[in-house]
Amino acid sequence: MLTYDISKKGKMSAYQYLYHLIKNDILDGKLLSDEKLPSKRSFANHLGISVVTVMNAYEHLLSEGYIYTIPRKGYFVVPIRTQRKTDFKDIRPQPEKEVRPDFDFSGNRLNGGKFPFSVWSRLMRKVLLDYENQLLEPLPYNGAEILREAICKYLYHNSGMNVSPQQIIIGAGTEYLYTLIIQLVGKDKIFALENPGYNKISKIYGMNNVKTEFVQVDKKGLNAGDLRNSKADVVHISPSHHYPTGVVMPVDRRNEILNWADEKNGYIIEDDYDSEFRGAQRTNTLFSTDKNERVIYLNTFSKTIAPSMRISYLILPSHLLERYRERLNFLSCTVPSFEQYTLAYFINEGYFERHITRMKKYYNQCKNKVKEIIENSVVRDKIEIVENMSGLHFIMKINTEKSDDEVVSLLNKEGIGVKFLSQYIHTAGGSYQHRMIINYAGFNIKHLENALEKLNNII
Amino acid sequence: MLTYDISKKGKMSAYQYLYHLIKNDILDGKLLSDEKLPSKRSFANHLGISVVTVMNAYEHLLSEGYIYTIPRKGYFVVPIRTQRKTDFKDIRPQPEKEVRPDFDFSGNRLNGGKFPFSVWSRLMRKVLLDYENQLLEPLPYNGAEILREAICKYLYHNSGMNVSPQQIIIGAGTEYLYTLIIQLVGKDKIFALENPGYNKISKIYGMNNVKTEFVQVDKKGLNAGDLRNSKADVVHISPSHHYPTGVVMPVDRRNEILNWADEKNGYIIEDDYDSEFRGAQRTNTLFSTDKNERVIYLNTFSKTIAPSMRISYLILPSHLLERYRERLNFLSCTVPSFEQYTLAYFINEGYFERHITRMKKYYNQCKNKVKEIIENSVVRDKIEIVENMSGLHFIMKINTEKSDDEVVSLLNKEGIGVKFLSQYIHTAGGSYQHRMIINYAGFNIKHLENALEKLNNII
Repeated sequence: MLTYDISKKGKMSAYQYLYHLIKNDILDGKLLSDEKLPSKRSFANHLGISVVTVMNAYEHLLSEGYIYTIPRKGYFVVPIRTQRKTDFKDIRPQPEKEVRPDFDFSGNRLNGGKFPFSVWSRLMRKVLLDYENQLLEPLPYNGAEILREAICKYLYHNSGMNVSPQQIIIGAGTEYLYTLIIQLVGKDKIFALENPGYNKISKIYGMNNVKTEFVQVDKKGLNAGDLRNSKADVVHISPSHHYPTGVVMPVDRRNEILNWADEKNGYIIEDDYDSEFRGAQRTNTLFSTDKNERVIYLNTFSKTIAPSMRISYLILPSHLLERYRERLNFLSCTVPSFEQYTLAYFINEGYFERHITRMKKYYNQCKNKVKEIIENSVVRDKIEIVENMSGLHFIMKINTEKSDDEVVSLLNKEGIGVKFLSQYIHTAGGSYQHRMIINYAGFNIKHLENALEKLNNII
Repeated sequence: MLTYDISKKGKMSAYQYLYHLIKNDILDGKLLSDEKLPSKRSFANHLGISVVTVMNAYEHLLSEGYIYTIPRKGYFVVPIRTQRKTDFKDIRPQPEKEVRPDFDFSGNRLNGGKFPFSVWSRLMRKVLLDYENQLLEPLPYNGAEILREAICKYLYHNSGMNVSPQQIIIGAGTEYLYTLIIQLVGKDKIFALENPGYNKISKIYGMNNVKTEFVQVDKKGLNAGDLRNSKADVVHISPSHHYPTGVVMPVDRRNEILNWADEKNGYIIEDDYDSEFRGAQRTNTLFSTDKNERVIYLNTFSKTIAPSMRISYLILPSHLLERYRERLNFLSCTVPSFEQYTLAYFINEGYFERHITRMKKYYNQCKNKVKEIIENSVVRDKIEIVENMSGLHFIMKINTEKSDDEVVSLLNKEGIGVKFLSQYIHTAGGSYQHRMIINYAGFNIKHLENALEKLNNII
């Protein structure tokens, strides 16, 4: 009879251990197909364990299909067809190394040290006390009501936007929300994207297999004539601040694009990702100007609070809200309740507004300081600073015979990161050479002069 | 000359107020197209404010395109094409009312009161102290390393899965991860889904416009012969516990499906969503059994911790990991760092394992209690309980002449929620009538007897 030493079971229960031993013998082929197992009673006697223990082990093997039973005959080993091992290249996962440059002219980082972290953590503790177990309750698909209300109040007072909390959909980052928008307006639509523009945006549209067309950005933002000549039904723009050119779309261009959407029955996706940090006062959003429900508004707290804060939101016009409720409300909200409540407190108690005000001032100081250093540095005669009333970056034209690619690769060799406007161009058209993007928001100013010297040696 | 009362500016700065007044007059048509604005100096004198204030207001209007300038001539109003208001149905967003039944036989809730919330909030405070500002730093695209390591250790000790933290991708819920899987294996593939099965899963595949085929679930789970006869390249299954039938896939069927994937060069998506709560010990995962990199493993903490906890993860075989890094690592991680660190502590300090053990015991008690109440209730002669070694539900066959739809609608009228297995059927085939789904995990047992009486009156 099968013999096992159950005393070696360690921390396992006797039945678990027995189950394991038998299973392994089946898998190793020590117990053959259709071989009969000992009867429960005699096996229990043989091993010095209880009948119940053997029964539990058999039941478990039975439920997993390792053995089968024939009434009044007993238990038998199932003929196991094991998976054949086919040939394939054995690629063990390699750890990735993220190479971070010593200094980055165009890095996407923010200065985390300026965030009122002690306030945030106090509010987190308050949320823990106030909500307790409720934190574990599932949230509505569109996010916590308290947060949607807080956002509405904030927008009303700071952007003159008058929207209802019902119109807001909270989601884990703009990238995720792009995919919801595509679902909402339809995958069969053609999407116009800004050229130059964020590579990530076109990647996400590409990932979702929707057709896109690039439309040129001129000095007033996306060219409305070109948009009219395109096949697009939907346009994705950042009118309050275009990246990377920094263009702020003037009101006449905005109206042209709104008129286009009306005539076409199309949609405008208004990506307002860092409008809070515009130098001067904020412009009216397209969403507020729109009278015909053509605009979908999109914003995020990743830029205003922290990149690790994955909270973004959509504001939908009424008929799209109805459509969202019909088609997409089966999707659970992707942001944890805890973060939503904390952010709601942060906005409602006025900390968010104060933080924005403080950061605008701070970033303005950074900009002036960075400009001053550049304008007094060794490269001063080979550059020109082009500034719009833009968010957290400006453009620095450089005078060089070298191509942008060459400059990038030579600077990278020196441990310096940089991006040029030309790297954001998707299709030919427009002259964008020699325009460096200076993202001063996350600068370590101490290393700037050194980096400028290296740049000077290269150009 | 234009006259405004700047003393009414309230809390605004003088330039902001002036900007607003002029802008509104342009939009209202009080200032006409191409009308010349007063010179800065004379306007300043006239209004009793500084020239700088007027200049700032003009600059702002200029940057937003409300006015234009002709050198040595002055500032003029831009001809504004305002958006035409077209006719459309004015649908104001209606607040939604969520109707929650008084009692739900098949509700998807868990008992939140059993979660060690005081431990969780202590760990949250610990994370705040330990990580401070680091919480604001962006995370790697695949999630916090400490969490990926914690999951690996947990899986190693509790599921016998030996995977590297590199293979794990953290994401905000399984629904989001499904869409990543589709990206990864290819939208051109045909996906086999379980019939019956979760409606949400087929909805998400539908949303992503991929072709799906339903394959019948029999007593051993997804029918491998039918799978072989289908056109599918990829199959989505829950072998450790199928919903709603509760079937646990035996090892021979598992091997058949693994062999199918090998021959087809296809993929198996192993959705292990509540395997932790299986009655007996856990079966080996398909992922561990697989020798040829055909299995993508998927699990979530929504069932084991709380539905509001939007943390799920993928485990990828090596070649798909490479593909992920090539194609999808531009997507930011969708889960906040704070939740990730807290969960890592919760797992690493052993609380997760203890919680699972306690909940298994508790749910088992629930199940026995619920069964006992049912078996002693007024319906006892009209029902039969069908139990697999399944997660948090069982099936109750009822003997009635009424159709499932009728029973659902009559119970709903009494304020009682219920779902039948037949509601999970996507295509014809198999007899699934009269099988109620009893999700006892979130039951309010006090109301069970009353609900059973109402059921008895109906059937």
